[in-house]
Amino acid sequence: MSTASSNSQPRSEFGTFLTFYFLLLAGAIASFWWIQGIGHELKAPAATGASITTGVSKSSDVNVVAHVLATLAAVIAMGNLFAWVLKRFHQPAVIGEVIAGIVLGPSILGACFPAAMHFLIPDSSTDPHELVVSSLKTIAQLGVVLYMFIVGLELNLQKVGRQAKAAIAISHASIVVPFVLGALIALWLYPMLSTSDVPFTSFALFLGVAMSITAFPILARILTDQRLDQTDLGVIALSCAATDDVTAWCLLAFVVGVAKAQIGDAVIVAVATVTFIALMFLVARPLLLRWIAWAELRGLDQRTTPVLLIALLCASLATEAIGIHAVFGAFLLGAIIPHDSRVSKELSQKLHDVVTIMLLPAFFAITGMNTRIGLINGFDSWLICGAIILVATVGKFGGTILAARFMGIDWRTSAALGILMNTRGLMELIVLNIGLSLGVISPKLFAMMVIMALVTTIATAPILRKLVSGGEPQSHPLHAGG
Amino acid sequence: MSTASSNSQPRSEFGTFLTFYFLLLAGAIASFWWIQGIGHELKAPAATGASITTGVSKSSDVNVVAHVLATLAAVIAMGNLFAWVLKRFHQPAVIGEVIAGIVLGPSILGACFPAAMHFLIPDSSTDPHELVVSSLKTIAQLGVVLYMFIVGLELNLQKVGRQAKAAIAISHASIVVPFVLGALIALWLYPMLSTSDVPFTSFALFLGVAMSITAFPILARILTDQRLDQTDLGVIALSCAATDDVTAWCLLAFVVGVAKAQIGDAVIVAVATVTFIALMFLVARPLLLRWIAWAELRGLDQRTTPVLLIALLCASLATEAIGIHAVFGAFLLGAIIPHDSRVSKELSQKLHDVVTIMLLPAFFAITGMNTRIGLINGFDSWLICGAIILVATVGKFGGTILAARFMGIDWRTSAALGILMNTRGLMELIVLNIGLSLGVISPKLFAMMVIMALVTTIATAPILRKLVSGGEPQSHPLHAGG
Repeated sequence: MSTASSNSQPRSEFGTFLTFYFLLLAGAIASFWWIQGIGHELKAPAATGASITTGVSKSSDVNVVAHVLATLAAVIAMGNLFAWVLKRFHQPAVIGEVIAGIVLGPSILGACFPAAMHFLIPDSSTDPHELVVSSLKTIAQLGVVLYMFIVGLELNLQKVGRQAKAAIAISHASIVVPFVLGALIALWLYPMLSTSDVPFTSFALFLGVAMSITAFPILARILTDQRLDQTDLGVIALSCAATDDVTAWCLLAFVVGVAKAQIGDAVIVAVATVTFIALMFLVARPLLLRWIAWAELRGLDQRTTPVLLIALLCASLATEAIGIHAVFGAFLLGAIIPHDSRVSKELSQKLHDVVTIMLLPAFFAITGMNTRIGLINGFDSWLICGAIILVATVGKFGGTILAARFMGIDWRTSAALGILMNTRGLMELIVLNIGLSLGVISPKLFAMMVIMALVTTIATAPILRKLVSGGEPQSHPLHAGG
Repeated sequence: MSTASSNSQPRSEFGTFLTFYFLLLAGAIASFWWIQGIGHELKAPAATGASITTGVSKSSDVNVVAHVLATLAAVIAMGNLFAWVLKRFHQPAVIGEVIAGIVLGPSILGACFPAAMHFLIPDSSTDPHELVVSSLKTIAQLGVVLYMFIVGLELNLQKVGRQAKAAIAISHASIVVPFVLGALIALWLYPMLSTSDVPFTSFALFLGVAMSITAFPILARILTDQRLDQTDLGVIALSCAATDDVTAWCLLAFVVGVAKAQIGDAVIVAVATVTFIALMFLVARPLLLRWIAWAELRGLDQRTTPVLLIALLCASLATEAIGIHAVFGAFLLGAIIPHDSRVSKELSQKLHDVVTIMLLPAFFAITGMNTRIGLINGFDSWLICGAIILVATVGKFGGTILAARFMGIDWRTSAALGILMNTRGLMELIVLNIGLSLGVISPKLFAMMVIMALVTTIATAPILRKLVSGGEPQSHPLHAGG
């Protein structure tokens, strides 16, 4: 073998190589020419038609993969561009991606260049394009399931344990107050924005839950960005948000169950949900802890990740089968895996980038497709939209401050906590999409609620900065940036 | 705030907490009760029917996400089980996953428990299930595109440069000989297994390319497993396989172009393909090298991965638009990114696990669904299948030995090289699925070729072990394992 690379007569070896190569190619071309000459005379049986081709050709009328790749490319590119611009205004990246989805959807691109939008995010009403939308939706769902699993993994429930009382009091107050206010505003909105096939109870419950969401990941990101994550405020905020997430998603699971079930089934769904949560904490958690200890002792190998991903898929399927959403099982499984185990850290690190960069853009595309800002037309509609933002903010902010003051926390920290808990981000969009796909909220209300989610999330970082810094003008990023 | 966690009177604080919590919950329940009482009297406008619900309800007749999650869970679980068993026989994990796909498809599960199979991998002919199959296909395609990108990233083209002559001579001979033999056997197979709507040229070209694939990733895995990757044999084998991959996939791009194009268009596709390859090497590569140097100097940040993934999606879209397959663009982009740059290593590490564990199982499910072993019925069919395996092996093995001996490599190393180049694995399955979806090969021939890919891949590791160890009985893993 060494002769091949260290020959003393390189020229003659090169000659050998060239001769060999020439003969090889010439022989190949001549052979294929000869074979093709014979082959052209051959007759194959007549095509039997349907059976072979239909399964394939129907989907190849529309190149589903090309549409999906183009949509992902457009959302990722535009989302990163917006995120890069918004970073100067200290906004979390997710805001840029949500706006990119809306811009590429019917609200902006669809209004200006319908053809361009239909290429990216085709109209699902035309039959072959339904395949494209369905594929995008599945990728979005897979992304959301994995994302909620990561959110669960990153929750530190043990840390909450240390100040459980304050965290539970504050977070539950920050759920209950907006929940009740949301149900209250439902009295006003139901006759205007709902239809007779949606029962008032489902509508009010859903609106209540949607108002009471806090986005743990964005809250954590904002705290880290402003270097507050190790302060008293940061620690209590993270604990509250973690408790809030677990509570609000359990509540959502129940609400979805009620909305989906017939009246008699609601009890079954509720019982199944409670049983599932109990099983996860009382049976799955001890088993998982033992398995993780064993796996880490033995050293993590290439079987660890598949086992956990199979568990994730099974937990998602279980909650989907119960009738509450697949994301709930994924989130709960993540939450019961200890936050600081090596398994959890490695898994979260492995999943994070592909999920957030590659899969979630499909979710932003679907959300953008569903958000028709044009439906909010006229002064009255924008008034309702403003009222929704007001109720959501007052509920979250008021509930948090009330409880925080009651638990003996000072005014400024309480106010900062209130602002932080008001960030809704991606989690709110996941909830809203569930509501829309169940038909509990109309496309018009969906658009209003998306705007509410955007506004409350965008408001968080600048106001927090003002509160914490005491409001000196030189630290105003909003003014410095533009 | 410190009062919340370090109070000197824990009992009274707990009392405060309980009182607060009780009032909160009682207030919430009472309020909701009251609101619901009023809300029940409210009348919402009558449902307008179609517009809101149809877009949603059609897909919710079949729970696409549940089907997809169940299929992924089943393939991942069974694939890992088989891979774990086959590891004792020194087989690469991919063999287990391919077999899992086939077992869960119509060949085994479908024959025994059709209902179970239809739940996992539904029949695409029934309309609503088309959405499930289409979604699985899209996830599979996304997985394959990302996987081929990783394969490209892991190719070390600079290493090939050092022994370019031997690598080119051996790898091209190992392509040309099976290519010509594949075209030759096409003369026999065309009248039996093709139909009149497939031109002989497309059929023969495709069969030729399908015979000449070598799976670089599996070859690399086998060499690492047997600790041969740093030996002379390992280095030359990796160089040959890398050259083989680039050549065979360029050839495949051309063949797919010819098969898809009308006669006049074939020239346009060929010109576009050559132009694309030239642009990638002459324009994109220098730009990328400069960008990578800049990015690594500045320190990789959260913008690096999105930029490369957008480039990946654009390259895939470009080749899809030309009419050659999306995987080709992904592979070529990976190949032009320097193998040992930090960007490449981090990206490959980030993508690897999610892609192979989570997304590729969708590809194995689709491949299993397409593989109907039952179509190979009767002695004649199995004879053809055996002939295909023989031709593929003789072509790959013979071509490699011929060229290796000609380049002055000793007999034993030449034979080991021949065996290694005969491993086809996942890459062959990707090629076969492209052929099937284009309609160039029939489902029956597809099943035969899948068996060929499995047999040649399974044979590699044990025979190599025998050749390299010289055949001492104590090192026979096959006997030791079972």
